[in-house]
Amino acid sequence: MKRSHRVGAICQILAESPEKIFSLNYFCEKFSAAKSSISEDISAAKEAVKASGYGYIETIAGASGGVRYVSDISDEKAAEVQNNFCNMLKEESRILGGGFLYTSDIMYDPSIVKGMAQIFAKRFRNAGANYIATIETKGIPVAFMTAHLLNLPVIVVRRETKISEGATVSINYFPGSSERLQKMSISKRAAEPGSKALIIDDFMRGGGSIKGIAEILSEVDIQVVGTGVAIANIEPEKKKVSDYFPIVYLGKVDENDKFVEVIPNSQIF
Amino acid sequence: MKRSHRVGAICQILAESPEKIFSLNYFCEKFSAAKSSISEDISAAKEAVKASGYGYIETIAGASGGVRYVSDISDEKAAEVQNNFCNMLKEESRILGGGFLYTSDIMYDPSIVKGMAQIFAKRFRNAGANYIATIETKGIPVAFMTAHLLNLPVIVVRRETKISEGATVSINYFPGSSERLQKMSISKRAAEPGSKALIIDDFMRGGGSIKGIAEILSEVDIQVVGTGVAIANIEPEKKKVSDYFPIVYLGKVDENDKFVEVIPNSQIF
Repeated sequence: MKRSHRVGAICQILAESPEKIFSLNYFCEKFSAAKSSISEDISAAKEAVKASGYGYIETIAGASGGVRYVSDISDEKAAEVQNNFCNMLKEESRILGGGFLYTSDIMYDPSIVKGMAQIFAKRFRNAGANYIATIETKGIPVAFMTAHLLNLPVIVVRRETKISEGATVSINYFPGSSERLQKMSISKRAAEPGSKALIIDDFMRGGGSIKGIAEILSEVDIQVVGTGVAIANIEPEKKKVSDYFPIVYLGKVDENDKFVEVIPNSQIF
Repeated sequence: MKRSHRVGAICQILAESPEKIFSLNYFCEKFSAAKSSISEDISAAKEAVKASGYGYIETIAGASGGVRYVSDISDEKAAEVQNNFCNMLKEESRILGGGFLYTSDIMYDPSIVKGMAQIFAKRFRNAGANYIATIETKGIPVAFMTAHLLNLPVIVVRRETKISEGATVSINYFPGSSERLQKMSISKRAAEPGSKALIIDDFMRGGGSIKGIAEILSEVDIQVVGTGVAIANIEPEKKKVSDYFPIVYLGKVDENDKFVEVIPNSQIF
């Protein structure tokens, strides 16, 4: 096998499984090549990946060491994702009654969601999370894609208890949007007590749901180490949580003038 | 830039965005290289990707042509995914009361779900689907990952109507597991009428939900062109749908003897 073929295969294999450690031996056996050749291939793969604009290859020393692909996104590409997202949200056809916006087409499109997940993965990679937590339903894709990039399992908080969840813990909480009490529940098996989680969701208004997720996680002894939301509503100014990272802010949604105000978060870089 | 670096970068860029067509010009500009060099790089990238065991690079001729990465999985790797899945399902700690199995940890783990999605993507790639449809909640990750590999948007059928879905169409249906009437709803904006969808879900017992999804899709003029489920229960033998493709079959779940019967679908290859 030629060097360029091995380098290409290494880049592909690593990019398919972000954060998974592959030993040098794995590639030696796969390509029937000597360790010295594979070492050189990996150096070339590192250079190759640098040129692409997302992701880099990291070497981990030691007996259980090897190489892994770290998902990343350049400032230029992050700005592209953000602008694209802003422009879509501004489309007047999204305006529903009551100042709501239709966003399911965005939140369920892998080609769009992946860019958001790359931004979250870059931001939170070093937060020390063992899980990505979200609440059903619309935030699951972006939470799951972020989890894929960080190679972490997902915890899905449910609105109702299901028999297939086994024993559950439930709380009542006040969502931001109304003062009607709501319920959420989590399986007791969903996570190892004592671990850490990142909350990822599609939308935050008052922060009631996010606060609820943090509360229910703490009931099963999981600590929240970061919160990312695709869209944060500007109103109400006073949120129920203080520490959150949105990709864009949603301002006024004017049904009559068909106008949607969207402000990119300038701190994503 | 060296040839091996360009080949590596091409493999990574294509693998990051399955089914997305990249023109040769895109790479010429990115690497400031001549078309003849990029052509040779792509030939090398094709060879490289062949060696990895999943995915291949396809050339599309014509003015809007270029190259794209097609997700694939070798028989060997598919068998590995299937066996791994079977072994996990057989763990006696999963047995819940009433013959239910706890599977959320499997269905919410990207590193496991990706293998299932690769099997579905391979099976259904040529079905002509424009969308992947699923019903909330537990099937969303595998549906979304399959959608990522096929570069298609997802339609999530909801159990309840939500204001943020806009105008919806609802039906009542009988799920397979009980004779209690249930409701499902779909946003009228979820899909272009006249298009085709693939149904992907985590679990099927009697087929009532899958039949319901097909019915609600037909109400918004979407035709189902295939159905994939991670797990199909063997009982009841007579299902409400006839055409479905499971990764594994679930047989007897014995609470007393702590025994779970799981049979791999021998037709995944």
